[in-house]
Amino acid sequence: MTEAEKGSFQCPLPLRHHSSIVLAHGGGGRLMHHLIDLLFRPLLSDPGLDRRHDAAALEATGGRMAFTTDSYVVHPLFFPGGDIGSLAVHGTVNDLAMAGALPLYLSCAFILEEGLPLETLTRVVESMARAARASGVAIVTGDTKVVDRGKGDGIFINTAGIGVIKHGLEIDPRGVRPGDVCVLSGDVGRHGVAILNAREELSLESAIESDSAPVAEPVLSLIDAGVEVRCLRDLTRGGLAAALIEIAETRRIDIEIRERAIPVREDVRGACEILGLDPVHIANEGRFIAFVAPGDEAKTLDLLRRHPISAGAVPIGRVAREGTGLVSIESRIGVRRILDMPVGEQLPRIC
Amino acid sequence: MTEAEKGSFQCPLPLRHHSSIVLAHGGGGRLMHHLIDLLFRPLLSDPGLDRRHDAAALEATGGRMAFTTDSYVVHPLFFPGGDIGSLAVHGTVNDLAMAGALPLYLSCAFILEEGLPLETLTRVVESMARAARASGVAIVTGDTKVVDRGKGDGIFINTAGIGVIKHGLEIDPRGVRPGDVCVLSGDVGRHGVAILNAREELSLESAIESDSAPVAEPVLSLIDAGVEVRCLRDLTRGGLAAALIEIAETRRIDIEIRERAIPVREDVRGACEILGLDPVHIANEGRFIAFVAPGDEAKTLDLLRRHPISAGAVPIGRVAREGTGLVSIESRIGVRRILDMPVGEQLPRIC
Repeated sequence: MTEAEKGSFQCPLPLRHHSSIVLAHGGGGRLMHHLIDLLFRPLLSDPGLDRRHDAAALEATGGRMAFTTDSYVVHPLFFPGGDIGSLAVHGTVNDLAMAGALPLYLSCAFILEEGLPLETLTRVVESMARAARASGVAIVTGDTKVVDRGKGDGIFINTAGIGVIKHGLEIDPRGVRPGDVCVLSGDVGRHGVAILNAREELSLESAIESDSAPVAEPVLSLIDAGVEVRCLRDLTRGGLAAALIEIAETRRIDIEIRERAIPVREDVRGACEILGLDPVHIANEGRFIAFVAPGDEAKTLDLLRRHPISAGAVPIGRVAREGTGLVSIESRIGVRRILDMPVGEQLPRIC
Repeated sequence: MTEAEKGSFQCPLPLRHHSSIVLAHGGGGRLMHHLIDLLFRPLLSDPGLDRRHDAAALEATGGRMAFTTDSYVVHPLFFPGGDIGSLAVHGTVNDLAMAGALPLYLSCAFILEEGLPLETLTRVVESMARAARASGVAIVTGDTKVVDRGKGDGIFINTAGIGVIKHGLEIDPRGVRPGDVCVLSGDVGRHGVAILNAREELSLESAIESDSAPVAEPVLSLIDAGVEVRCLRDLTRGGLAAALIEIAETRRIDIEIRERAIPVREDVRGACEILGLDPVHIANEGRFIAFVAPGDEAKTLDLLRRHPISAGAVPIGRVAREGTGLVSIESRIGVRRILDMPVGEQLPRIC
């Protein structure tokens, strides 16, 4: 792992006979074994858990566990602030955190397109390894498939995750109650704008980096401190708006939000205005909302602001009443309107 | 679920406004919610476990657990004896069984190509639902991504699986010992030949169906009966040969196999001869080998033969000695040769 940490991982010789992925790298023969043994295992695998077998055998954790999956098809593969590898770790770790779970184990499955440069794959795998270490998770099982040229797009990654739920709270939309406060963990819109900028070469003046980051630490600090966390949701596809609407509709409560309270960086706001996008609909990869009991608002803000990832946490609204499941937003000029989900999304292949 | 069981599931109206997948079906907005709520949930989801949240919360099982993942990129999507949906359930359930685990939970992640007919997706999802019920597993969490036309190939599916390990055996290559008997669960080569026939329209005379099937039941019957199971391996990519070679190399033992003992159906053997393929290298999706203690051979055969899936179980060889990790095979005319893995594989995109 030390070579990887120094960022100087060199593909061993048998792999370097091919400078790019060929169909045989997914074929179950020698070439696939080279790829696994010489690239994936040294960088990704936990020697204590690696039994070179079809499935990983893990100690059960006691209590409840959380289980989630996401595939990542982001385009382009590399963008300011991250890449498909770090995103595939953060996204799944964050989904576990949203169940109030401590992330423990990840699986990792690649679908590679024939012709993918091995150097690109190596960079992505190195990034996954770094993100997994930083997130405190072990990658314990994996899979590699190769598809013909023109039947994929470089790299798709699936990660599934297992976490342990150590508390007795029921953190899900059904737990939300009238009066609960909605806290947002920081500014929104950066991931989507960073991807769009990288994809379309918009040449925005300032460098806007994705907010992609693991959020389990600040989230679990709330639970450890006894905050009554009613629901958590990360703000990925569909952004803040979709997260709020999903919760309101599932639980049939009305949520009231103040637009002025939602932090958006000036350069992100500027880019959104030029592009005709609304920051509340844009995907983030290191932001979440927490619904907490009204008496816990100050404690929640204090705890979240201690972590760099959620230093910009602010209250943005509250649950007004049992109702029909509507989210209303009070605009900067004081007009209140119903927030709706777009039919599709503003930006495809954001994650 | 009853409509699905009757095979008469009708896509509800809001979905049928689109006859094929568009990018917005993966966008996090209304269309994605329609797809999930009107197709995936009714067919796949377990109402008792569905919390409409980022991760599924599950009761931990106690003891050890097994965790595995596989992506499925098989081409074509439908073939005699199965399709990508049933394969994605059987393959992952079987990987759990190979750890001696009782399969419990699956995740299910789709990467759909823009333009995929909704009718095709519906057929695949119905097939997954049937296979999950037949395999005794619950699909508890999922994800959907859509990629632009020409950047995918219809449907790719990832399933990750969790199972519980209820025994104290260490079922992995390191447990294999000299003298152990290798039992094969039935005839080999059908899955690969069925795919090739469907893909290339070889018009082989007889209908060769894939052997795709869940094998957990016969496998667990061995463990329940107290058979000393040393190692299990399913015979997917790379076939019987790759499975044997991986175990021999990992454990550094020499394995001796008798070609005559390996069952291959006459029509499969004929197809292989025409195509210049060796049945021991061809992928199967419902076949496995079990290494068991020599005294348990008769009991193993008796137990496996009680299940239709492994009714053709036979001993095919044994572990000869601690050694350098070689597999040798005695041919039909009595010549012994070293079995090697091909560099790639004979058939790409078999699973």
